[in-house]
Amino acid sequence: MEVLERALELERAGRSIVHLEIGEPDFPTPPRIVRAAEEALRRGDTHYTDSRGTASLRAAIARHYETAYGASVSPDRVIVTMGTSPALLLVLSLLIEEPGDEIIVGDPGYPCYPNFIRHLRGVPRRVATGEETGFQLDPAAVRRAIGPRTKGIIVNSPSNPAGTLVPPGDLAALCDLGIPAISDEIYHGLVYGERARSALEFAPDAFVLNGFSKRYAMTGWRLGWVVAPACHIRRLQILQQNLFICASSFAQQAGIAALSETHPEIEEMRRTYDARRRYLLAELPRLGLRSAVEPRGAFYFLVNARHIDGDSLRLAFDMLECSGVAVAPGIDFGEGGEGYLRISYANSIERIAEGVRRLETYLNDRAR
Amino acid sequence: MEVLERALELERAGRSIVHLEIGEPDFPTPPRIVRAAEEALRRGDTHYTDSRGTASLRAAIARHYETAYGASVSPDRVIVTMGTSPALLLVLSLLIEEPGDEIIVGDPGYPCYPNFIRHLRGVPRRVATGEETGFQLDPAAVRRAIGPRTKGIIVNSPSNPAGTLVPPGDLAALCDLGIPAISDEIYHGLVYGERARSALEFAPDAFVLNGFSKRYAMTGWRLGWVVAPACHIRRLQILQQNLFICASSFAQQAGIAALSETHPEIEEMRRTYDARRRYLLAELPRLGLRSAVEPRGAFYFLVNARHIDGDSLRLAFDMLECSGVAVAPGIDFGEGGEGYLRISYANSIERIAEGVRRLETYLNDRAR
Repeated sequence: MEVLERALELERAGRSIVHLEIGEPDFPTPPRIVRAAEEALRRGDTHYTDSRGTASLRAAIARHYETAYGASVSPDRVIVTMGTSPALLLVLSLLIEEPGDEIIVGDPGYPCYPNFIRHLRGVPRRVATGEETGFQLDPAAVRRAIGPRTKGIIVNSPSNPAGTLVPPGDLAALCDLGIPAISDEIYHGLVYGERARSALEFAPDAFVLNGFSKRYAMTGWRLGWVVAPACHIRRLQILQQNLFICASSFAQQAGIAALSETHPEIEEMRRTYDARRRYLLAELPRLGLRSAVEPRGAFYFLVNARHIDGDSLRLAFDMLECSGVAVAPGIDFGEGGEGYLRISYANSIERIAEGVRRLETYLNDRAR
Repeated sequence: MEVLERALELERAGRSIVHLEIGEPDFPTPPRIVRAAEEALRRGDTHYTDSRGTASLRAAIARHYETAYGASVSPDRVIVTMGTSPALLLVLSLLIEEPGDEIIVGDPGYPCYPNFIRHLRGVPRRVATGEETGFQLDPAAVRRAIGPRTKGIIVNSPSNPAGTLVPPGDLAALCDLGIPAISDEIYHGLVYGERARSALEFAPDAFVLNGFSKRYAMTGWRLGWVVAPACHIRRLQILQQNLFICASSFAQQAGIAALSETHPEIEEMRRTYDARRRYLLAELPRLGLRSAVEPRGAFYFLVNARHIDGDSLRLAFDMLECSGVAVAPGIDFGEGGEGYLRISYANSIERIAEGVRRLETYLNDRAR
């Protein structure tokens, strides 16, 4: 966040900045989805809905698990939320019963996970991951970290910051440790060359978070969902009703269109991301910026930059000031991210190429 | 909620139900506001915004305090949220520092207030209000309830469930007790025959919650805001960024249109509510359902029904089963609401009149 703020400041002062720190699709929402919202608005669909979400959207989400994963999910197990973040807040509110209850998260990992946990007076129990597991949780390491106060395990595949997928066997094992698994699947749909597996394929009782932001380029719509075990739905619904009332009515209509209609733009976006990914896969090692495991999802590379500077925040700021390229310092994702940089390809191939050119000059200058 | 669920169940089974339990405007969103959202959607305004909200919406909200209340508010003190509920969650997250910290709320009062407080492991300190103060907090009673752990006082004027306003002198006094005042002003704009006063007129450092749901009939948009003291904004912004990211981008554009353009429908809605209110003001006492203080805001009457049945939940269920009229039992709003019924006029005058006819028959039958 500090790097982003400084980048925006430099931009306002007239500097040209290449944004490779962004965590948001650079595409517009596909037009049929937009049209569904416009139609809903014109119909006067501007009132509260059922706090769980409309029956049709919950049914569309349930069908999605059947068609995309072959997993059977009842619509009664779905709660529609104002994005994946409020969905996580609901689930953690349920699982963290007492102050001090622990939730296991990977290190490095999405920085908001520990913040959510601490917000609810829980304790984030960070389990180190590393290059050997593609920065995904190792089931054996997680088992060792489980204690009497462990109330949940957050899995994130494809992951932020590394863009890597957890192997199916590990996902199954992580769901089978006797502790509720919370699978954040927001980057499903942005996967290249393989198929993302849902925790629901292995563990019908997993908590699964997903939303429309990434796959459908709908960040500004604030629409997501949680699939939860049937026995927890009533409590989640009461939480949702009390804290948030419901998700936006016409955004929910757009969500139905997203899941039920065909959008050629979705596959086109995925192919565009993949072309950028392959470009960086060739270029970054040439700059000495290597990722141990090929990222096959989301729109991130987590590259090792320790040989340049072990202090990733200092390095990111120096890159920004000297070359006008903004990247996210690995330390933002936990101590396990120190020495790494997260490079996002949610930007045009032209800007990414410009970023690579600038980084090359910067690194050559530093090496001199 | 139980009454609403049963009412919907009866309706599905074919019964005719008159809904006087609803807390939501029965009007569509004014067309210029809808149009602003459609234009934003077509422009591709579907991305994340600044977590505080767009600069133009924050500026429009700040101007609103100048024009509507003569209160000077910097846009930097405004955070745009996904409705007033998440705004309250942010403020209470800030004020409840330790489990057991207390927040003062009126009894009866909006039932979600205590739920929010308990969710954050705080303690709702309920201060009884009564007919003599129109179910608004009495500053002297609040002063007596303040203890070492008191971290805030929630004021709600016009109030849910009573539709009454706090007198300006009392509002000023409640903001001057040395404890942060949180003024929930969501029903401002739905006020009849007087002017609603903002806490910001008396206490520039109050926390003020408001939103677009009620005045602009925008419940399904999920858009609200909080005005907070400058010294707390950074922490609120970090909470907002972590928990919610931001409010919907194109809904924010609609919010600008709501505040900046002229909407004849708004005054028309207000006049329609007022006509219904005056109708009930004449009819309810004829049925023996009296409210001690004339409700001059929101769309609620809180009427004393103790002479019919002291158990408001039993009475509401009996009314529903026997006459098909759904009202909210006072006990839902706290023990101080026991013996009362909340009657909403967020329904057409025809349906309200039908409800009155049915209640008259019901009450006559009971009296026999």
